[in-house]
Amino acid sequence: MINRLCIFGVGLMGGSLALALRRAGQVGEVVGCGRSRANLEEALSCGILDRYEQDPAQAVRGADMVLLAVPLGAMHSVCVAIRDHLAADAVLTDVGSAKGSVVEDVRAAFGTLPTQFVPGHPIAGTEKSGATAAFATLYEKRRVILTPLPETAPQALARVRMMWELTGAVVEETTVTHHDEVLAATSHLPHLLAFGLVDSLAQQGEREEIFRYAAGGFRDFTRIASSDPVMWRDICLANREAILQALAHFEADLHAIKQAVRNEDGHQLLACFQRAKVARDRFCDIVATSPEMGPE
Amino acid sequence: MINRLCIFGVGLMGGSLALALRRAGQVGEVVGCGRSRANLEEALSCGILDRYEQDPAQAVRGADMVLLAVPLGAMHSVCVAIRDHLAADAVLTDVGSAKGSVVEDVRAAFGTLPTQFVPGHPIAGTEKSGATAAFATLYEKRRVILTPLPETAPQALARVRMMWELTGAVVEETTVTHHDEVLAATSHLPHLLAFGLVDSLAQQGEREEIFRYAAGGFRDFTRIASSDPVMWRDICLANREAILQALAHFEADLHAIKQAVRNEDGHQLLACFQRAKVARDRFCDIVATSPEMGPE
Repeated sequence: MINRLCIFGVGLMGGSLALALRRAGQVGEVVGCGRSRANLEEALSCGILDRYEQDPAQAVRGADMVLLAVPLGAMHSVCVAIRDHLAADAVLTDVGSAKGSVVEDVRAAFGTLPTQFVPGHPIAGTEKSGATAAFATLYEKRRVILTPLPETAPQALARVRMMWELTGAVVEETTVTHHDEVLAATSHLPHLLAFGLVDSLAQQGEREEIFRYAAGGFRDFTRIASSDPVMWRDICLANREAILQALAHFEADLHAIKQAVRNEDGHQLLACFQRAKVARDRFCDIVATSPEMGPE
Repeated sequence: MINRLCIFGVGLMGGSLALALRRAGQVGEVVGCGRSRANLEEALSCGILDRYEQDPAQAVRGADMVLLAVPLGAMHSVCVAIRDHLAADAVLTDVGSAKGSVVEDVRAAFGTLPTQFVPGHPIAGTEKSGATAAFATLYEKRRVILTPLPETAPQALARVRMMWELTGAVVEETTVTHHDEVLAATSHLPHLLAFGLVDSLAQQGEREEIFRYAAGGFRDFTRIASSDPVMWRDICLANREAILQALAHFEADLHAIKQAVRNEDGHQLLACFQRAKVARDRFCDIVATSPEMGPE
């Protein structure tokens, strides 16, 4: 299906895609490109890559599928480096957690939006990163959201869709704006809150004791605060508007809860907690019964 | 060690204590008392109780250890109902998640603080509740925090400490105020944020889609929003001052993060996320290496 796949940023996401396509027997050669030679060597030795290049122009030569899996803050410079070297039939896609910023970076780098560009975001991952964290089944039963644009060629979209389906993922399409709003609320905001809470507690005087007393619930609640700080800085900058909107919405609702605590309004607190419990339990039912999500 | 244990509120906490003491062969008779006859029958049939009473005065008769495991909002009325019926040698303790309010409720019900009263809080639990959720190993390697008062008799304290140690728990002592402040920050505030976020999202128009796109991180982050709403309402009311303080502290720190996002201040965001990751990873190390916490 793919003759030569070129991956920029050979980490958990790109590495796992390569391993899944190899397992499916649907990729000829896999070429990697990235800043860390040590990571590229790792990727070679665990069978993700056939070879690597440190020059982006060399890396994309002859590739019919190019995956941008670098941090959001590096998208623009990679695009500038490859724009004059892409093969005529090359399809370009990415795995960025925010889509609006990637679309703008690609447009700015190429001067106009290439018809062969298909923005994408696999909703998958772990707190680990790097090539050694990659595994072939990462995308099985996970959602991959594609956000094609009016300029996007239907054939390019079809190729990217098929590539992800070969990994076992379920592909959906939505708009760039809608993707960014939903992810701001369900992923970016929770990460901000978890990072913020842990940092807030860590700044306090008796932090050793604070963490020593923290129970299991705290561990679950703050697990995502162990994610890659650079990646999350880039996401905050890239999806700034939608995150600020989601945060403002949440702050207003949190303020109402605070008022209820202050006013000792047990009815309002109970109503809020009951609605949340119903919604959370229903969310778990959706997850448990949807073949496309499955248990984690 | 205990001749007759009387448990008010035979749920996960009280039921698991009874099962652990039975397993250790350290309890003669276990008597339950509560409002739900169905739950008490369940507790009988799963071997938690030897018998139950629905009249609190009858229930405490002849008990040398009395455990208050009812919701915080019910502590006062139970104390009023039992105060004239406790045996002279009876030790009174509780498992409330906030300690200041329980101390005040006991003091108000008894007129003065009984020297035989030892406030306690086991840092353990699951999202499940009721007698059927109880199991003998719930407290193994968990912390139980006791907050004795100047009035507390050393012998009463020693008996409660030994009781918890027999379940495999590690017992620590601190003050009422300090307990309530630390728990507000590490448990009550995270619960408020999780309940608040899920409710906030559930109120939004496209909630089905929002939850459909939510990834694994969201599931971890919001797990505690499936906890018992009544219990958490009571905790919010009981530990109101400390929760408002912890929330104000967090809101100020969250505001700084919001400003950093608004100002596109990548340095500040990265510094915050890195500090949080270091603290979270260190917290996990503490958990992994402390014999008294162990993995969950």
